[in-house]
Amino acid sequence: MIIILGSQATDAQIDDVIHRIESLGLQAHLSRGTYRTVIGVIGDEQKIAAAPFEAIPGVAQVVPVLPSFKLASSEAHPLPSIIRVGDAKFGGGHLGMIAGPCAVESAEQMDAIGRAVAEAGANVLRGGAFKPRTSPYAFQGLAEEGLKILEDTGKRHGMPVVTEVLDPRHVEMIDRYADMFQIGARNMQNFVLLTEVGRTQKPVLLKRGMSATLKDLLMSAEYILSQGNPNVILCERGVKGFDTETRNLFDVAAVPTLKTMSHLPVIVDPSHATGRPDIIPSCALAGVAAGADGVHIEVHHAPAEALSDGPQALLPLQYAALAKQLRELSNLMQQNPS
Amino acid sequence: MIIILGSQATDAQIDDVIHRIESLGLQAHLSRGTYRTVIGVIGDEQKIAAAPFEAIPGVAQVVPVLPSFKLASSEAHPLPSIIRVGDAKFGGGHLGMIAGPCAVESAEQMDAIGRAVAEAGANVLRGGAFKPRTSPYAFQGLAEEGLKILEDTGKRHGMPVVTEVLDPRHVEMIDRYADMFQIGARNMQNFVLLTEVGRTQKPVLLKRGMSATLKDLLMSAEYILSQGNPNVILCERGVKGFDTETRNLFDVAAVPTLKTMSHLPVIVDPSHATGRPDIIPSCALAGVAAGADGVHIEVHHAPAEALSDGPQALLPLQYAALAKQLRELSNLMQQNPS
Amino acid sequence: MIIILGSQATDAQIDDVIHRIESLGLQAHLSRGTYRTVIGVIGDEQKIAAAPFEAIPGVAQVVPVLPSFKLASSEAHPLPSIIRVGDAKFGGGHLGMIAGPCAVESAEQMDAIGRAVAEAGANVLRGGAFKPRTSPYAFQGLAEEGLKILEDTGKRHGMPVVTEVLDPRHVEMIDRYADMFQIGARNMQNFVLLTEVGRTQKPVLLKRGMSATLKDLLMSAEYILSQGNPNVILCERGVKGFDTETRNLFDVAAVPTLKTMSHLPVIVDPSHATGRPDIIPSCALAGVAAGADGVHIEVHHAPAEALSDGPQALLPLQYAALAKQLRELSNLMQQNPS
Amino acid sequence: MIIILGSQATDAQIDDVIHRIESLGLQAHLSRGTYRTVIGVIGDEQKIAAAPFEAIPGVAQVVPVLPSFKLASSEAHPLPSIIRVGDAKFGGGHLGMIAGPCAVESAEQMDAIGRAVAEAGANVLRGGAFKPRTSPYAFQGLAEEGLKILEDTGKRHGMPVVTEVLDPRHVEMIDRYADMFQIGARNMQNFVLLTEVGRTQKPVLLKRGMSATLKDLLMSAEYILSQGNPNVILCERGVKGFDTETRNLFDVAAVPTLKTMSHLPVIVDPSHATGRPDIIPSCALAGVAAGADGVHIEVHHAPAEALSDGPQALLPLQYAALAKQLRELSNLMQQNPS
Repeated sequence: MIIILGSQATDAQIDDVIHRIESLGLQAHLSRGTYRTVIGVIGDEQKIAAAPFEAIPGVAQVVPVLPSFKLASSEAHPLPSIIRVGDAKFGGGHLGMIAGPCAVESAEQMDAIGRAVAEAGANVLRGGAFKPRTSPYAFQGLAEEGLKILEDTGKRHGMPVVTEVLDPRHVEMIDRYADMFQIGARNMQNFVLLTEVGRTQKPVLLKRGMSATLKDLLMSAEYILSQGNPNVILCERGVKGFDTETRNLFDVAAVPTLKTMSHLPVIVDPSHATGRPDIIPSCALAGVAAGADGVHIEVHHAPAEALSDGPQALLPLQYAALAKQLRELSNLMQQNPS
Repeated sequence: MIIILGSQATDAQIDDVIHRIESLGLQAHLSRGTYRTVIGVIGDEQKIAAAPFEAIPGVAQVVPVLPSFKLASSEAHPLPSIIRVGDAKFGGGHLGMIAGPCAVESAEQMDAIGRAVAEAGANVLRGGAFKPRTSPYAFQGLAEEGLKILEDTGKRHGMPVVTEVLDPRHVEMIDRYADMFQIGARNMQNFVLLTEVGRTQKPVLLKRGMSATLKDLLMSAEYILSQGNPNVILCERGVKGFDTETRNLFDVAAVPTLKTMSHLPVIVDPSHATGRPDIIPSCALAGVAAGADGVHIEVHHAPAEALSDGPQALLPLQYAALAKQLRELSNLMQQNPS
Repeated sequence: MIIILGSQATDAQIDDVIHRIESLGLQAHLSRGTYRTVIGVIGDEQKIAAAPFEAIPGVAQVVPVLPSFKLASSEAHPLPSIIRVGDAKFGGGHLGMIAGPCAVESAEQMDAIGRAVAEAGANVLRGGAFKPRTSPYAFQGLAEEGLKILEDTGKRHGMPVVTEVLDPRHVEMIDRYADMFQIGARNMQNFVLLTEVGRTQKPVLLKRGMSATLKDLLMSAEYILSQGNPNVILCERGVKGFDTETRNLFDVAAVPTLKTMSHLPVIVDPSHATGRPDIIPSCALAGVAAGADGVHIEVHHAPAEALSDGPQALLPLQYAALAKQLRELSNLMQQNPS
Repeated sequence: MIIILGSQATDAQIDDVIHRIESLGLQAHLSRGTYRTVIGVIGDEQKIAAAPFEAIPGVAQVVPVLPSFKLASSEAHPLPSIIRVGDAKFGGGHLGMIAGPCAVESAEQMDAIGRAVAEAGANVLRGGAFKPRTSPYAFQGLAEEGLKILEDTGKRHGMPVVTEVLDPRHVEMIDRYADMFQIGARNMQNFVLLTEVGRTQKPVLLKRGMSATLKDLLMSAEYILSQGNPNVILCERGVKGFDTETRNLFDVAAVPTLKTMSHLPVIVDPSHATGRPDIIPSCALAGVAAGADGVHIEVHHAPAEALSDGPQALLPLQYAALAKQLRELSNLMQQNPS
């Protein structure tokens, strides 16, 4: 950590800062410049991360030099992690293909979609039983009945399943039915929920919040990791943008950037990132070309009848065509790692 | 609701849309234009809000004409609501003055700050007992012990108290100690939590999420209202911005805009919006000049010792000077309502 | 265009709106709903695009149904355009490879870089002679001397050249030396400059502004097209984002979205979009996977000596490796058009 | 400037950085930490601002400590500047009141509006003769004829006039008619134009670009100042936001923040910031409460007939009511400077 003092900082203020650093058991290294005085802090930066140095009179700027996400960082763990979800793998050259409807609506709906995506090559089935709907008047999901249908459909078609958890009181129940928890974008900083899923050993699909920086996302992953659960998969699903042509702004550069910062696998969700079936395939391909370890796609056999988010789903035939392209692209990428 | 069909929509597609509208018990009103066909939907728009018309082949755009937040809207309730928190009032010309530290740290700290803000004219005391910290390694709050200290301090200095609720399992406990729940920006779309506080009758201070539109904020208020709790106070606390000079981007226009959309009181929180004590007073004044029904300010007697968010707190003396200016400004605004 | 009137619009206000529509030689089609009255406008929408219907008392919302960018739109010109720059082609399956340094610094520097990128397979050489620097104290470019060096280098290595134009008074001079004008992001809405390059027949590389919507970008293209110059290539180069990990936020979804709106070729510039050489290759690949018709990359043989934007340049060897990957990816994309 | 080297920086890399610093005539001050090595640069930071230290192998981060806008900075000029435009003053407690229509349409229109705003207390008249319209098909302004009408109207009603300059070739012409140049948001980084107005001595109203940071704005001011023209007034007019309820996002905190960075006067333009007459008065009051040195408001006597931006104009009566409130608020602010 580097502490920069303003041009009008007094000697007493400088001494005060040095005294505080030393009282934390760290060393201070002073450089007086023409315009500014700079104090370098040497020692365990974690000790002072929470100390409010910015509030000390005379301090102009505090520059951290180490990431605060120790367990998630590449410095701690230089090789990429491979996370297993049932038989599917994410990371280290393996491409996870998550597909399924926004919400579980009925056993028939799930069977039709589950069969289609399994045939197309998906290796994880998704479906929501508890839905975080913006409106209190919209369909909220089938709850435990939906979890049962999801589990059954996954077993019938040979796929592990992932479903969203909204309530810390549901973690235990969902743990019994699902192979992976999903933490949605709106709950990325629901630290209570992160802590609860961190107490299990089940993989967690952690979606980036709509205004979360990559550091924020990794700090949320750190909550889960610090509870003892090492199985976190990060997901870029679009950030808030200013252009209404797409639902969100798909930040494809997050994929390679996260890989410079962390060992955790990173996937993309072009369905939520764009909300437009006509451009979802192009954005899915872009994600894999950028190095994503998996692709999350919403598929529905009858979007115009869907109880939730129908307009953004691909049809099974569209998904099958895309899945074929994604595999070919993934093969090309493996031959020429960038 | 108005449904716009693309230039290449077929007659069969148009008939399909009309058929769906009529099957919901509504009337369709067709206009064929040179380039586009438009179908107006007449009847209860809530019935079709959840129907995925965008996913029907041929449909280019769906334009809602009524707000989906029925209970929060000005159309439902044209006069401004006045919400009482203990003896304090928010709305209808009353200015709520919420002040206190970010986190409850000790009885001594709370007593010193509580006394100072009460003398300065604050009428609600704040203090966090459960803290939503970005880092799992940072101070997480004193929990129930903190709630007790907060309640005691409020009673001693004659102020009702507000504290943040993070976990739906804590709603009952916090309800016993506090006079108002705070839902933080990161939980604005934690629908589980909104539902739980909606089941009480206690006032809720609902902070706007960092990438939430005003409609999103009002839909979250609707969750609380629809459970039977009418006591919601909205709070603008800064949205995500691109300039790092301030922590967030203080959207002061949200105040008058929300008042055109809703009857609920609106307050501002310049402490979180800016993160800079040197500009907090100016932004607090701006909020009241824009019509805010209250001001939420973090105050700490020793910011450089604070366990959380010290750098953004005002000193008690700074708060007292600001509170005086705010009252004078509020008086001027009452004389000349815009 | 659809005009929606508020619930309290009077009969006189409705009549006034209808009268204004008819006085423009258009037809009005009235639907009275339970809560809202809607007036559809039938006829040439361009006639009323500029009329301020929002300012008429009683009007709540105006919804345009046709794009205002007539010449740039896919509706006007359904097949993709192919634009030629010297022997290079952009669009319709052809991949333009623009490469070179940020600024022309000397004949030696240009020769070294030009030779390297030509060998790697670039087909257009870039280099700035007039630089739009944020600071008035930074290197501003070699001006006409730089144009001469650029032209010479292009000829020597068999590549057409592109360079940025900043000043309408320089259009004629640059037209003598360069094969394509570049309009930079900061000048995307410099309508004076757009008009001047629109009066030539030379291709224009039009970069998206940092806060420009795709409609804004296409309206700027329309300025050029409406002057009689049909040769416009659009370029996504990152929009303003909130995360400082990358210089800008690379909006890769802009590529397929623009292609649903317009016939013009679209390229990507991951150098400016990210400002980080370590992720530029991944983002370039993402762009081509998303359907881009070309890639613009800054290359410098000695980034640490560069007079402008050195830190974001690839080394010649890095560019050669990327160019090979881009060609293979482009071949794969041609086999499986999405 | 502080240069931070990565944990894997070699001794040779460290020596290289030190050598480059010393070769610029500056001193390097080395601190080796546990995880990072930090080099402080002592001497004239301007000398190395343009040197691409980020591109040197081993360098992880470069932290500037001095602003690059020397002439605009508070460090160079601690007291606030007062800028005169005719008899009006901006800054140092004086409130500039700029009002008038978006575009000059006719002598009659200007006379009606000019008379009304003068009576209401405006002290500068605005009106556009060259309009930067998003669409090439929209009204582009009356050009020199418009300048003549503007000048005449200002003289008749005793107000200096301000008008936008779009083209560097028009600077001389506009200089003959107007008392202040306006540089619009879309041209904030049109460095050619900034340089040309910097060569005059006439005041310049410099509007903040839609995605410009405050540093970007001050760097643009620096372009004008560095040419010898010290008369720059900064204007906050809304940045790009994600909520479509308002046209832009009014960043009221920019006012006090700019005042901590610069001595130049700062005004607000709530007309462009919001685009909504129903909230313009509240936002104007917020701007003055935040410390603005002036307010820019669009006024039109018949918004529904306006040739440009009618929907955002206030009526003369609305402006008169607002102007009275602004003066009262400004008086209150002078009594209690924050």
